[in-house]
Amino acid sequence: MEQHMIVPQGFRAVVANAGLKDDEDDFTALISEVPAVSAAVFTRSRFAGPSVVLSRSAASTSSARGVVVLSRNANVATGKEGLENAREVRSTVARAVGLDDDDLLIASTGVIGKQYPMARVRQRLAELRWPFPPADFDRVARAIMTTDTTPKVVRVNCGEASIVGVAKGVGMIEPNMATLLTFFCTDARIEPVDLDRVFRSVIARTFNAVSIDTDTSTSDTAAVFANGLAGPVALDEFEQALYTVALDLVRMVARDGEGASKLIEVRVSGARDGEQAKRVGKAIVNSPLVKTAVHGADPNWGRVAMAIGKCEDDEDIDQQRVRIGFGGIEVYPTQATEETLVRLRRHLEGDDVVIEVDLGIDAGAFTVYGCDLTDGYIRINADYTT
Amino acid sequence: MEQHMIVPQGFRAVVANAGLKDDEDDFTALISEVPAVSAAVFTRSRFAGPSVVLSRSAASTSSARGVVVLSRNANVATGKEGLENAREVRSTVARAVGLDDDDLLIASTGVIGKQYPMARVRQRLAELRWPFPPADFDRVARAIMTTDTTPKVVRVNCGEASIVGVAKGVGMIEPNMATLLTFFCTDARIEPVDLDRVFRSVIARTFNAVSIDTDTSTSDTAAVFANGLAGPVALDEFEQALYTVALDLVRMVARDGEGASKLIEVRVSGARDGEQAKRVGKAIVNSPLVKTAVHGADPNWGRVAMAIGKCEDDEDIDQQRVRIGFGGIEVYPTQATEETLVRLRRHLEGDDVVIEVDLGIDAGAFTVYGCDLTDGYIRINADYTT
Repeated sequence: MEQHMIVPQGFRAVVANAGLKDDEDDFTALISEVPAVSAAVFTRSRFAGPSVVLSRSAASTSSARGVVVLSRNANVATGKEGLENAREVRSTVARAVGLDDDDLLIASTGVIGKQYPMARVRQRLAELRWPFPPADFDRVARAIMTTDTTPKVVRVNCGEASIVGVAKGVGMIEPNMATLLTFFCTDARIEPVDLDRVFRSVIARTFNAVSIDTDTSTSDTAAVFANGLAGPVALDEFEQALYTVALDLVRMVARDGEGASKLIEVRVSGARDGEQAKRVGKAIVNSPLVKTAVHGADPNWGRVAMAIGKCEDDEDIDQQRVRIGFGGIEVYPTQATEETLVRLRRHLEGDDVVIEVDLGIDAGAFTVYGCDLTDGYIRINADYTT
Repeated sequence: MEQHMIVPQGFRAVVANAGLKDDEDDFTALISEVPAVSAAVFTRSRFAGPSVVLSRSAASTSSARGVVVLSRNANVATGKEGLENAREVRSTVARAVGLDDDDLLIASTGVIGKQYPMARVRQRLAELRWPFPPADFDRVARAIMTTDTTPKVVRVNCGEASIVGVAKGVGMIEPNMATLLTFFCTDARIEPVDLDRVFRSVIARTFNAVSIDTDTSTSDTAAVFANGLAGPVALDEFEQALYTVALDLVRMVARDGEGASKLIEVRVSGARDGEQAKRVGKAIVNSPLVKTAVHGADPNWGRVAMAIGKCEDDEDIDQQRVRIGFGGIEVYPTQATEETLVRLRRHLEGDDVVIEVDLGIDAGAFTVYGCDLTDGYIRINADYTT
């Protein structure tokens, strides 16, 4: 089946310009036309914005039906006025649809420290009329973008049901207990407690395993809405399908990392446990020296050794037992020959770089995702905004 | 007194090419001609090289008289052969001077994962003759450089005695419990236990407060040698003098950070304690988005708020009580006016950018040092070596 033919039933969306961007779409309201169950996780930032505060409260009901997203302005560090504005925006949408405020999450992404241009926003929101058109997820994915270069949308079938996920975010990305902005809609029927458990498990292995620049956003929000219109599904099948969608989105996010030219996948095995494997993987994928070496296709594998060494409190990491490889080519402890270095350079010149580390301790494993560090990242971020 | 006139008595040094670099100086042996007391701290990396292993053992005697330094090759991840080579190099120098192996530290800096070219090194070391010439600290500082663009040496008087410090290191720099390579020589007379206490206290506030790229070297070594030839000094005066030397070196290291164009100083106050202040300062000075904004002189202060927010486990950080400023210009919670942003941009265009954060919790304070992130960092590190 063609990807674009896979659409969960019963989701409607309005995508529009609400005056934040000049004239591109910057406003989305994505809502199930029937009651739904929901699960969500959020940034743990101490500077989380009012959108996260309101959404966290709404998510606690497990029956949110959708989300309002504003892009170009994060509405963070905006004080009492920012909170009032977030409340007003969500409330206006809820009223237009005939819902309670707490039936909707709200998410906002973009510059920190600026108020919404409320006069313009109010004027545009006054035009909202329910029912919205059937959700066009490609357009939703585009409307929530900031410095993304490509919209990110993935669809899969799951029995009679289907799942579609959208994500945005290419900088300020090292989600912790949450993620950038990503929303999943499904018409599967699933109990709230199951949805919550499955969603947290999937996010832990996907969006919480990606890091572009070690910077954690103040606005990270991941949510799933399940309206049940397609009937029940096998839970393990649903989890696998949701994982597939989330992992594909994560790969898209990493590949589109600000200025990135390569996807880096770090597979750590032989760890004491999954936590240790993740810590080591993050140390590698976040090392600017590893990221720049990958960018330059420089077979300087010693930087991976250095990055592993940074896990200073892991006293069971013993350099005598560690093995390091790239795309199946072992470089340590085997002394790399000239021929190995040539093969290594060829692997590094590809678009997908895989780094394999075995700690030789036990069976813990984890895979993390990231990207190279380039001049493009500097250019985007030395100039972006204000 | 002219800086170059300040020289502690009784230190001798040979600086030479030992075949690691093409024909620049790459080998230093810096040694007190009389017995000395010493203190040292080292990298906590799990991939620490054999130089660190040997030096840690020698430092435990508190009576090391000097250090052998090789640059261009870190001698890390080189296995048993690397350890044997480090032993041989140190032993050859000790024999030439008439010392025991454990009277000398050894430090090595440069590429990871390559063996020393021992045939050439042996040939050069065979030429060593004691007594070496009086130490030329400018030449020492230059010989230990790798990608540094300037040698780093600082001298101060302290009563009848004097202190000189040298340092190298501009990348792979986020020392933890130790530092890049930095050596201090003094002719002050001081008890080993006092020297150790003072040295650790000074390093904690200087070299452990600098971060260039969050990458911790496998070779970090900081050591002080005191030979007593100038007699006793007041301990508090000595600590202040050593602090001055170390802080000046740290500022030089940060300003010369790979590709850096600006020194960033982050002053955190109002924290629960010094540890929390340091954690928040590091989160800011290590944020690639803060570093690139400083590089672009972009008054995007929201990125500082984001970076503070990353201290997710500090639940007493309350965004309602936080204050953020740059060079005395408050930007949060005061809503920044256009005029404020103009002044802010002017401050950011200078060579020294000061970021002030008050957490409004208690009296804890700490200052950390770093640099901006530029295209130059990418170019140096995408191409350096192999």
